[in-house]
Amino acid sequence: MSNILHKIGFKSSSTDKVYKALTTLDGLKGWWTINTQGQPDKFGGVIPFRFTLKDEEGGFDMKVRELKPGTRVLWEVIEGPPEWVGTTISWDLRQESDWAILMFKHADWKEEVEFMHHCSTKWATFLLSLKAYVETDSGSPNPNDFKLDAWE
Amino acid sequence: MSNILHKIGFKSSSTDKVYKALTTLDGLKGWWTINTQGQPDKFGGVIPFRFTLKDEEGGFDMKVRELKPGTRVLWEVIEGPPEWVGTTISWDLRQESDWAILMFKHADWKEEVEFMHHCSTKWATFLLSLKAYVETDSGSPNPNDFKLDAWE
Repeated sequence: MSNILHKIGFKSSSTDKVYKALTTLDGLKGWWTINTQGQPDKFGGVIPFRFTLKDEEGGFDMKVRELKPGTRVLWEVIEGPPEWVGTTISWDLRQESDWAILMFKHADWKEEVEFMHHCSTKWATFLLSLKAYVETDSGSPNPNDFKLDAWE
Repeated sequence: MSNILHKIGFKSSSTDKVYKALTTLDGLKGWWTINTQGQPDKFGGVIPFRFTLKDEEGGFDMKVRELKPGTRVLWEVIEGPPEWVGTTISWDLRQESDWAILMFKHADWKEEVEFMHHCSTKWATFLLSLKAYVETDSGSPNPNDFKLDAWE
């Protein structure tokens, strides 16, 4: 099993806005994909995320497995690309003086395939979008996300 | 052992410019850190990379372990932060129609420490800088790199 890891900081006096950006439809639409539905604020809720790719739509459904206000969110991927199904995505938040710190982990990839390389870099660009959303209210959600390569 | 993986594409008719950006001092200074010295174009050559951080200087020395023009570069970290020493960094290039594709791996981290999370996201920002350097001649090398958190 293999993991995608990231860390990013937000100039913010609390972790509240980051937590909201992960647990509300308005938040998720503000930095990840404007086509987000479901129940990100409910334990056991399902969140269908859909993305406009080159000539098609794609996406995945997450099930909310943990919700600890201001400190932790955990999702399990229940539908989507086969490499993603069964993986989990955790968001751990803490405050360090005037920074809200996010530790990110997309865990339990079965193999280190090319798609995992792609997703690692792509997650980083979405975390930069999340940072911009939290700090300046100007994220870059899909379909206005940063395009990395010929796959997009 | 654990790995940082990334993938990025360059709108380019060949992998030559990416390869040069990884194997010349002018190239490395153009997207990673302006304080780069040594012999990136020699098998066995050492490349001291130095970075201006908040109130200090930091860096690491890489030894060039593989050089396959246009297709692969491998470095071994021989000096630097203890978490980095002994790890390797590989750059695999290939051409796909009008895209040069880079597969990146920073391999053999002993533990998935917080610093590894940070470095994974930081590598992504430097790969975006490399992409801008190759496509538009305007990278963002340290000290003008994108700052991620309170560590920088």
